[in-house]
Amino acid sequence: MRTTAGTALLTDMYELTMIEGALRSGTASRQSVFEVFTRRLPARRRYGVVAGTARVLDAVEDFRFSGAEIDYLAGAGIVGDETLDLLRDYRFRGSIMGYAEGECFFPGSPIMTVRGTFADAVVLETVILAILNHDSAVAAAASRMTTAAHGRPCLEMGARRTHEASAVAAARAAVVGGFSGTSVLEAGRSYGIRTIGTAAHSFTLVHDDEEAAFAAQVAALGPGTTLLVDTYDVTRGVERAVAAAREAGGELGAVRLDSGDLVAQAFTVREQLDSLGATSTKITVTSDLDEYAIAALNAAPVDSYGVGTKLVTGSGHPTAELVYKLVSREGADGAMEEVAKSSVSKASLGGLKVAGRVRDRSSRAAEELVVSCATLGSGRAELERAGARPMQVELVRDGGEIVDEHRDDGALERAKERHLASRNELPYAAWRLSEGDPAIPTRHVDIYPGDDEDPAATI
Amino acid sequence: MRTTAGTALLTDMYELTMIEGALRSGTASRQSVFEVFTRRLPARRRYGVVAGTARVLDAVEDFRFSGAEIDYLAGAGIVGDETLDLLRDYRFRGSIMGYAEGECFFPGSPIMTVRGTFADAVVLETVILAILNHDSAVAAAASRMTTAAHGRPCLEMGARRTHEASAVAAARAAVVGGFSGTSVLEAGRSYGIRTIGTAAHSFTLVHDDEEAAFAAQVAALGPGTTLLVDTYDVTRGVERAVAAAREAGGELGAVRLDSGDLVAQAFTVREQLDSLGATSTKITVTSDLDEYAIAALNAAPVDSYGVGTKLVTGSGHPTAELVYKLVSREGADGAMEEVAKSSVSKASLGGLKVAGRVRDRSSRAAEELVVSCATLGSGRAELERAGARPMQVELVRDGGEIVDEHRDDGALERAKERHLASRNELPYAAWRLSEGDPAIPTRHVDIYPGDDEDPAATI
Repeated sequence: MRTTAGTALLTDMYELTMIEGALRSGTASRQSVFEVFTRRLPARRRYGVVAGTARVLDAVEDFRFSGAEIDYLAGAGIVGDETLDLLRDYRFRGSIMGYAEGECFFPGSPIMTVRGTFADAVVLETVILAILNHDSAVAAAASRMTTAAHGRPCLEMGARRTHEASAVAAARAAVVGGFSGTSVLEAGRSYGIRTIGTAAHSFTLVHDDEEAAFAAQVAALGPGTTLLVDTYDVTRGVERAVAAAREAGGELGAVRLDSGDLVAQAFTVREQLDSLGATSTKITVTSDLDEYAIAALNAAPVDSYGVGTKLVTGSGHPTAELVYKLVSREGADGAMEEVAKSSVSKASLGGLKVAGRVRDRSSRAAEELVVSCATLGSGRAELERAGARPMQVELVRDGGEIVDEHRDDGALERAKERHLASRNELPYAAWRLSEGDPAIPTRHVDIYPGDDEDPAATI
Repeated sequence: MRTTAGTALLTDMYELTMIEGALRSGTASRQSVFEVFTRRLPARRRYGVVAGTARVLDAVEDFRFSGAEIDYLAGAGIVGDETLDLLRDYRFRGSIMGYAEGECFFPGSPIMTVRGTFADAVVLETVILAILNHDSAVAAAASRMTTAAHGRPCLEMGARRTHEASAVAAARAAVVGGFSGTSVLEAGRSYGIRTIGTAAHSFTLVHDDEEAAFAAQVAALGPGTTLLVDTYDVTRGVERAVAAAREAGGELGAVRLDSGDLVAQAFTVREQLDSLGATSTKITVTSDLDEYAIAALNAAPVDSYGVGTKLVTGSGHPTAELVYKLVSREGADGAMEEVAKSSVSKASLGGLKVAGRVRDRSSRAAEELVVSCATLGSGRAELERAGARPMQVELVRDGGEIVDEHRDDGALERAKERHLASRNELPYAAWRLSEGDPAIPTRHVDIYPGDDEDPAATI
């Protein structure tokens, strides 16, 4: 869902007070390079998934301080007149490159790089991180679930368990991770995602009995609908469901199971359906699923999975822990300099970075190569020498023009395909749900002239 | 942040297909009672916190299907003409009562009760649950953190770690749970919450050295500002920070520590500040805090806590697991009947419910009394007999008029005060961070005429 009200106040106050300070010292106009990356993957995760890129591009475009925003900032005394003047004219005039949406990433992967003046680039920190952290967390969970489902369709149904606007973004991120439908209508309207859903237990309960409910649903949605059969007794429910469809002249599309021991029930219900001759009637299951439950259901005769809470909350990891760090900036002499803080436990690697995925002879990913370099050209030459697939694409051209192919109507479908290809390229260890290291190691090479630090230990 | 685009498509598709089916069977117009409650509290939680009520009321008011929404539904073939006609004219015409925002709740507490026709009430399920599940999860985490902080101010800084619109709602929910400020500007504009923030590491790094950065910040924000002292060496940072403020003719407001061993550092930095004579300079800490880290820091000389990720993601429980269930509806004879599904592991208690908090002689909460009753009058009489404090207030008057006191400009501050009172009323066990039962038990009494079930086991 496009935020119609502008995105400029979806911002931490300190982004603006930093501009206020930087205007005093003359550093607001220094050319700067900010990088989005993660220091580590969440426990048990073998890879991350870039998601939200298209939403970031929309948010950057909508990042304007209108009269209402300026009035609020002035009234609340957040910043002074000089900063307000800068914000009033603000539009992002720098450039952004990054991993294309759907790509897998690893600790230290520079998944988005924002270049511009310090003021231009720092102010985007909050909204860029919010979008990427949320959407990537959901996409990573979705990817594990679709891996565990081994080709059976996974459907997103978690809208009620997360913030109402997050739900729409979560549905989109789930598609990046391989999901094939969503329950939430706004995601259908905004992103063209197929919407799914038939009825809840309340529909059965508002009727005098299950027969009446099933008859009404079949009359409205046709015999190909999915009937929820566990409001009362499942065996009786299945019987009535098949009968309701046949009375309307068809075979039932599917039954849905939403409680109890789903593995055992799937076998029982499949047997019952087959014995009733309803061999084409499918079984969909929906109760508190996550990637582990899905893996356990693989041996059962289930046709599709509806996933709610665990998907939209990132299956234990609701945020991707991406950070946005200044890695290079113009010095007093006008030359670009690598910068990095040295805080205990939070040290960062300085410098503009170019990244590539090194593959072995069987075209399987073997290594994430991250090159700190003075210029993109020198970094890309290093990737070419290593035979690495370049990971970064242009998202916003220098000057602020957005590369529309990364947010057009086909962008989501392409991101889904890209993710599948990126995941399939990883070694088999990537598919495991258990504890373990990232699927491939990240190797950092520093070709910045005159640099002699050894940064390997800090990734 | 008010959703300006309307909330009607922030809805699961099945809400609309249920209306389609219910129109066929004539049940769409049956008077119905839906109830929001949770079956259990998350692990280690002794109480839940109602939050999001004001946002629910706004969402109900904005729940209208405009031409754009109708066009989408028609074009996508989601529902047929009769349902579209109903939706085109839709506005909620029923009534809503519930626990006032900020109240503590327990398993089985009927925190919101929606009455209206089946069609009127079922369609609000998704957006009501989304708001309450998100906001209550954040408020519950916030409440544990402010309890652990023992009066030291807690400040919300998590915008970058959650969906950009959730961030604004999370800031609001944090205030319900006792937080006293937020970093995110939109929460300042939308809800009048005090915003806070000064500078990140990037601000120090964009300058040629720490002295220049501190001087610029003090010039812009005054010596009372908070300086981040751990970009390089903390001891040197503290020295420079105090000096920068004094050069500008004042004493430094505070230093911020954002990495390393915060407990040890807080002692060292306090000692250093005192030895420099900066006894009024405060210490704020901000690195990956949760309620346990805050509790551990209690013994250290820290003045305030900035909490990010763990707050906005509900500290391990990003959703409150509230459900929205049909508990009573009109039968064929026009009389209201209790209804409940009997699915294994998901059984619900039927009937309209009235709830009260029973207190012991020292006015401390002893029990959550939940009465299933045929009418509000009979339920309230039962509460009075038990001497229980009635928990439900009118939120939407019958016919759809919203009770504005629950969403006006003062509503948030009152919810914060109400939460503090509600929490203080609980037994001391409520304050524990460890595993344990809900702070008070829920007792269910069924005075519905002619009812002989024993529902006690299902709460």
